[in-house]
Amino acid sequence: MARWIDATARDFDDVFQAFLKEPRGAVENVAETVREVIRDVRENGGEAVARYTSQFDRLVLDPTTLQSDNVDLHALAAGCPADLKEAIDFAAARIAAYHEKQRPDDHQFTDDAGVELGWRWTALDSVGVYVPGGLASYPSSVLMNTVPAKIAGVKRVVMTAPAPGGQLSPAVAYAALKAGVDEFYPIGGAQAVAALAFGAGHLKPVDKIVGPGNAYVAEAKRQVFGVVGIDTIAGPSEILVIADETANPDWIAADLLSQSEHDASSQSILITVNKAVGTSVDKSVEKQLKSLSTELRAREAWNAHGAIILARSLEQAAEIANEIAAEHLELAIADPDSLLPSIRHAGAVFLGHHTPEALGDYVTGSNHVLPTSRAARFSSGLGLYDFLKRMSVQRAGREGFGALAPAALRLAEAEGLPAHARSVSIRTNEGGGHG
Amino acid sequence: MARWIDATARDFDDVFQAFLKEPRGAVENVAETVREVIRDVRENGGEAVARYTSQFDRLVLDPTTLQSDNVDLHALAAGCPADLKEAIDFAAARIAAYHEKQRPDDHQFTDDAGVELGWRWTALDSVGVYVPGGLASYPSSVLMNTVPAKIAGVKRVVMTAPAPGGQLSPAVAYAALKAGVDEFYPIGGAQAVAALAFGAGHLKPVDKIVGPGNAYVAEAKRQVFGVVGIDTIAGPSEILVIADETANPDWIAADLLSQSEHDASSQSILITVNKAVGTSVDKSVEKQLKSLSTELRAREAWNAHGAIILARSLEQAAEIANEIAAEHLELAIADPDSLLPSIRHAGAVFLGHHTPEALGDYVTGSNHVLPTSRAARFSSGLGLYDFLKRMSVQRAGREGFGALAPAALRLAEAEGLPAHARSVSIRTNEGGGHG
Repeated sequence: MARWIDATARDFDDVFQAFLKEPRGAVENVAETVREVIRDVRENGGEAVARYTSQFDRLVLDPTTLQSDNVDLHALAAGCPADLKEAIDFAAARIAAYHEKQRPDDHQFTDDAGVELGWRWTALDSVGVYVPGGLASYPSSVLMNTVPAKIAGVKRVVMTAPAPGGQLSPAVAYAALKAGVDEFYPIGGAQAVAALAFGAGHLKPVDKIVGPGNAYVAEAKRQVFGVVGIDTIAGPSEILVIADETANPDWIAADLLSQSEHDASSQSILITVNKAVGTSVDKSVEKQLKSLSTELRAREAWNAHGAIILARSLEQAAEIANEIAAEHLELAIADPDSLLPSIRHAGAVFLGHHTPEALGDYVTGSNHVLPTSRAARFSSGLGLYDFLKRMSVQRAGREGFGALAPAALRLAEAEGLPAHARSVSIRTNEGGGHG
Repeated sequence: MARWIDATARDFDDVFQAFLKEPRGAVENVAETVREVIRDVRENGGEAVARYTSQFDRLVLDPTTLQSDNVDLHALAAGCPADLKEAIDFAAARIAAYHEKQRPDDHQFTDDAGVELGWRWTALDSVGVYVPGGLASYPSSVLMNTVPAKIAGVKRVVMTAPAPGGQLSPAVAYAALKAGVDEFYPIGGAQAVAALAFGAGHLKPVDKIVGPGNAYVAEAKRQVFGVVGIDTIAGPSEILVIADETANPDWIAADLLSQSEHDASSQSILITVNKAVGTSVDKSVEKQLKSLSTELRAREAWNAHGAIILARSLEQAAEIANEIAAEHLELAIADPDSLLPSIRHAGAVFLGHHTPEALGDYVTGSNHVLPTSRAARFSSGLGLYDFLKRMSVQRAGREGFGALAPAALRLAEAEGLPAHARSVSIRTNEGGGHG
């Protein structure tokens, strides 16, 4: 039996707030370890990166090129099965088409004072894509992080992925080449993040680092933030389903488990306005768990972090969903469009009964890199915007300058900045020739 | 005499790269101190915040309300001179008008496969605006951080500013009320950042923290990133001017000094294609320095970090500017429009001879919170976008689902995620009733 939370009960607020605060995943303090790795890579460059890679990944690298004869992206990619290549091609094309629609327009206008204002979007020069090893080494993640960067116009996309003992997924290698990765280094951990931020051997520094990783990688990204840009810090995955009596309990159970199976700290929550649906989902989860090869971690996650919340109305369900601010939100209800305007915080919303989250994970084209751990309260999923930046552009002619100068002078004076004031006043008393 | 760098010389690349790497401002390792303050505030709430405020700001706070009888925003604002209020009103209205133009549209489309895709922008619920004390306590910064948040639709904007001994600038108080700050707490430092992120006393946690601060504040923002959103980490201010023979050397000198006067780690750089202009600017800087009340720190900054770079062409100047990726870039040349397309990296660009940076600092309406320390390579100035986030929305009907299912299944299988696969396959074999 799942944990049930009754949102119609008097003590719901307290119970729910306590539930929201429950930790997921070990909170490791790895800051000092990571600080030392970064210092080492800054001081010793490729030699340090090669040393860590030998130690942690049992892979010998040339400290200058940071390459190994045993890891060749093209050779690996050739080993990817043809039908899997086709699925990767299909996903890549859809991701490209979707992100192409996000391209923002430059803007320019002249206001009442005669001042020209606006902005221009330009692409980053270079981006590092961190791809984790082990369980979370997914070709889909390579596509989701790399394709938008190339669509944005990033000229140099550098991918790193640890290749323990020389092992790397052929599908990851194929996805990297398909997505247009320009350089690849078989490195991982905090040393890879440090190398991307500060350079090491032939690896020149990048301008921004994206992609998920373990606690060391997340902390390394946090510490190099400012030297380079980073995407959001990724936490354990989450799904929240709001279901009414039109939902198929077996389908909902499958969707909940599709998150629980990621790892033991994943979270799956059902909010339903129909107790019978909740009970059926509860039973179906137990039944479906037994036939999953990922049963062990799915069960651990579901038992520790899963919940079925019984709400009094869809509007209450929406408010609870806004508090949770889940990475993925399915509206498995008869009329999702009528509830959508009430949803303020979620990474991605999946409407209706035929849009399981897994479609979005792979092939709708929408990005699957989404804010976790309630970060949807303040951040967006990955998109074209992450690989562009906005330069403000402004021009005051003589007329516009005259309209703005007095207020600028007054404020500069109030802030105790006389050189600011002079850069304005010196232009108000023009001799000749200039302008 | 300023430091001159000759971009036409053979060794320019080496000299310039070394120049770019010169540190500005002390690099203090305050991580452990800040970690302890944050832990203390998380554990002890308002009591800890009141204790630090008493210790560092000599201000006694009620540990529950985090307020002091000696600091009243309305009373303080009443002491702001009338003409300064007018200038603040003028700036606020222009900042509001400018940021209103940044409101992005929601987007929805149906693709060839019959899948509905798109996104919706929603505002953050709450934002914390950190306002520094001392030298950098500027009413203009209060406007630049707060007005866009309110325009975006943020319901709850919480401002913190240290008020040492009960002192707070009346102009800052007036700007806060004008901009629509909803709550104010006279606190600062890492303890204010911790209180904004985790809550303390009556101060409830916010979703994102923006605003500049000293090394402790910057480190605190870095450490709470993930729990809340943060803006970019602000470094010392910078200006870069590209000038040709049509530029007025006295005006350029004034503009350079308007950044140098901020503090001793500020940086002002001139790139000119005309040696005579460079020489005249050099002399004018020396002359103007002598009559500035901020001479001491302006001179220190100019001597330590200033430079005049002689370029062989405007195109070379643009490439150098892209490497520097300055916070502010003035194109003080005859035809700035022809050079603008070559500028890829800058926080804000000021075109022509009548657009000194100081106009943008205060009253063009464009935001003056801009990426520093070369962060314009990967990030944008503050804007409406910082107070909105984008929820992806997607719907596959039966038809769209059918088109996407095979590739999703193949990828889920390849990634070893059977519950992902099942959440798709279970819908391909429909019994009845649902959907």
